[in-house]
Amino acid sequence: MKKLIFVFSLIFSFSTFAQKDDSLQIRNMFDAALVKGHAYENLRSLCKDVGARLSGSPEADKAVEWAKELLESYQFDTVWLMPVKVPHWVRGDIEEAGINGVPMSIKTLGGSVSSKGKIESEVVEVQDFEELAELGEKAIKGKIVFFNRAFDRRLISTGQAYGGCVNQRWGGASEAAEFGAVGVFVRSLSHKKDKHAHTGSMGYKEGVKKIPSVALSVEDADMLSELLKAEPNSKAYLNVNSQTLPDKDSYNVIAEITGSVEPDKIITFGGHLDSWDVGEGAHDDGAGVVHSIEALRIIKATGYTPRYTLRCVLFMNEENGNNGGKTYAAVAKEKGEIHLAALESDAGGFVPRGFTMDGTPEQIKKMQSWESLLEPYKLHIFKKGWGGVDIGPLKEQNVPLIGLRPDDQRYFDHHHSDTDVFENVHQRELELGAASFASMIYLVDKYGLGGDLKGLEKN
Amino acid sequence: MKKLIFVFSLIFSFSTFAQKDDSLQIRNMFDAALVKGHAYENLRSLCKDVGARLSGSPEADKAVEWAKELLESYQFDTVWLMPVKVPHWVRGDIEEAGINGVPMSIKTLGGSVSSKGKIESEVVEVQDFEELAELGEKAIKGKIVFFNRAFDRRLISTGQAYGGCVNQRWGGASEAAEFGAVGVFVRSLSHKKDKHAHTGSMGYKEGVKKIPSVALSVEDADMLSELLKAEPNSKAYLNVNSQTLPDKDSYNVIAEITGSVEPDKIITFGGHLDSWDVGEGAHDDGAGVVHSIEALRIIKATGYTPRYTLRCVLFMNEENGNNGGKTYAAVAKEKGEIHLAALESDAGGFVPRGFTMDGTPEQIKKMQSWESLLEPYKLHIFKKGWGGVDIGPLKEQNVPLIGLRPDDQRYFDHHHSDTDVFENVHQRELELGAASFASMIYLVDKYGLGGDLKGLEKN
Repeated sequence: MKKLIFVFSLIFSFSTFAQKDDSLQIRNMFDAALVKGHAYENLRSLCKDVGARLSGSPEADKAVEWAKELLESYQFDTVWLMPVKVPHWVRGDIEEAGINGVPMSIKTLGGSVSSKGKIESEVVEVQDFEELAELGEKAIKGKIVFFNRAFDRRLISTGQAYGGCVNQRWGGASEAAEFGAVGVFVRSLSHKKDKHAHTGSMGYKEGVKKIPSVALSVEDADMLSELLKAEPNSKAYLNVNSQTLPDKDSYNVIAEITGSVEPDKIITFGGHLDSWDVGEGAHDDGAGVVHSIEALRIIKATGYTPRYTLRCVLFMNEENGNNGGKTYAAVAKEKGEIHLAALESDAGGFVPRGFTMDGTPEQIKKMQSWESLLEPYKLHIFKKGWGGVDIGPLKEQNVPLIGLRPDDQRYFDHHHSDTDVFENVHQRELELGAASFASMIYLVDKYGLGGDLKGLEKN
Repeated sequence: MKKLIFVFSLIFSFSTFAQKDDSLQIRNMFDAALVKGHAYENLRSLCKDVGARLSGSPEADKAVEWAKELLESYQFDTVWLMPVKVPHWVRGDIEEAGINGVPMSIKTLGGSVSSKGKIESEVVEVQDFEELAELGEKAIKGKIVFFNRAFDRRLISTGQAYGGCVNQRWGGASEAAEFGAVGVFVRSLSHKKDKHAHTGSMGYKEGVKKIPSVALSVEDADMLSELLKAEPNSKAYLNVNSQTLPDKDSYNVIAEITGSVEPDKIITFGGHLDSWDVGEGAHDDGAGVVHSIEALRIIKATGYTPRYTLRCVLFMNEENGNNGGKTYAAVAKEKGEIHLAALESDAGGFVPRGFTMDGTPEQIKKMQSWESLLEPYKLHIFKKGWGGVDIGPLKEQNVPLIGLRPDDQRYFDHHHSDTDVFENVHQRELELGAASFASMIYLVDKYGLGGDLKGLEKN
């Protein structure tokens, strides 16, 4: 009996000690991020010295240089570039649309073809593809189709509201073209009623005529909808000269701290280096870029020696192709790399609320066992959910994917628009995100994620 | 055995039914706040049509009228004014300070005396009262004391950081005057480094000479501190002509829905109608005012019939005296009113994170039992803690006090400064706060709060 009590106390002391140890390490990382953190200044530099950086642009090349130099300055064990072929779509110098001669605020959607001069036609407003199909060719042929389905305000998650509308932006052009439309207006994907249109990627169905597609600002979408009720025969115009150039060479930018015990096993974490060509890509995904760099920096600065290799990956081309993410997963597969987990920050620089995981129930349970360590930092979301676009292709290698979840109420106010600038990121919120990200990386390194990787916990 | 199973199923069905019922009512209130809510437009009107509204000012009178008219427009059962005597401090038309002839951004602290002309003297920087006492009269006499203790960046809660610095603002003048100082500069209570100084209340110790006290913007506090290191004999000037006029008559503005079963028992909830005389009092406490009004509106709009009387109280004079809160509690005591609970929203219009309660362990446990109903709205803080200044005086009547807890990272960026304006409040965050507040009021009405009031749950 005495022996049993002894063993019990030993286990108890050990776990209390481990808990205290973890609390201290996490506290140290938060202090490092909050007191003399680099995240905010790094984001300022990325936004102001580099700026908007769409794949294929000179600014994207500059971002690669910027990231490489910054990572090298921190003297991590390794910094290198992974070649990635990227598409090269370019917004034109002509970008105009209006109604009855009055201009509206628009942004050409990424991937859209040129209108090849000014299109003029009546406009047909629809809420969804079903309504479009009901109207059919008779009503649509020769017209501009206006997809005006708004974010559902009842949804607490703005990401869910976005998910409920994004098919208009991605697929609206081809759906409309099948009924003979000549162009497409899409309501900007945002709750915020202002004059800033939100761009984003769109694609064309094989075998369907390619017609130009542009986003209207929410204010102009509401205005147009009202106007069409009063004057259904109003004449719109649309003139954009965007183009798609040949693919270009670019890079994922990667830095590592080599694992001290099992260097062949990797924990990958990152954000995407490219952005849309408007605003400064501050929240999307400058925040994820500096979260990732800062996480590696503060893990190192606090003197923590990782068991596994910690790899920070700044992916290229998330916005219009995800070639960085696809290439990364293909290379990992080819090399036979073992990834214990992949983490992504691509949901903005707002106050962190927790993490979602695309993994097995056991892995999710493991993550949830750390909740009490992160509760002092007001993190409370630890559940099944989305990992991230860039890390998504690792899924087929059974890698558990973890997404940082900042608060999302303001995210789509700025997403893909002129207002996604440094000034709209809050210093402490950004810093708290970086420290939260670092804490999750630390815990995965220290305890593994169970499931198939159970053996790793024996440490 | 069969009978037992039957009883068990009955209990189970009942509680499942109740849970479903509650979920639906809460969902309906969120929908009412988010889809066609009034909170944002009401806040716009309070900020723009009334503006800053310090107790005793014509704007505070206008705010009383504004609130009464608005509450009457919603046709609640009762709307009335409760007389409150308030102090009447007035910022002067002269408000200037500088160093070596260069002006700094300042705000006279509320309650400060006039400098009666321009004071000129050297400046002694201290971090706290202990350092001040160590320096003593020899170093301080005839000088301006500069309290420069900054917010502790390591603290996750900005409210805690504020709590660690606020004694400089409240008591700095008398502490310094005891050693012969002629004036006081206080570093603004904020993390945010900008040119906007943050005002707030201060007081004088009986029997100590009253000297003027002003807040410096964080940017100027940092500048002054640097300058004093290089040039310790720099000459500062200070000139303010604020004054305290005779007390004035004002009002708490109150609206009720009468309870359907026990109308004599009251659930009080509110925010404060007064604000500082800078900015527009948007977060502090315009948000609390419109949260409270909106909560009563959506409870009524969703057709819920409260068991107890729901009383929305817009308190006057929280900022510099709390006479509204004190008067309210005194009147309640005099009338022998029974308050089941008092709730306050006075922590800004940011995304709601939950509630803190100043109550018994049983009452806190009761509140925590509702957590799963509010988790879909991302509320996660349900713990012991602060209620609110206005409802504070009800504490001695053993009323459990509940404070709405919005996210606090941005709160002190704007608190008591020129930037606390409507434009810095986010529509959905404000609306989510109103619906959260309404949900807690609903749950307290439906289930009571246990403890001494246990009998109330028998419903």
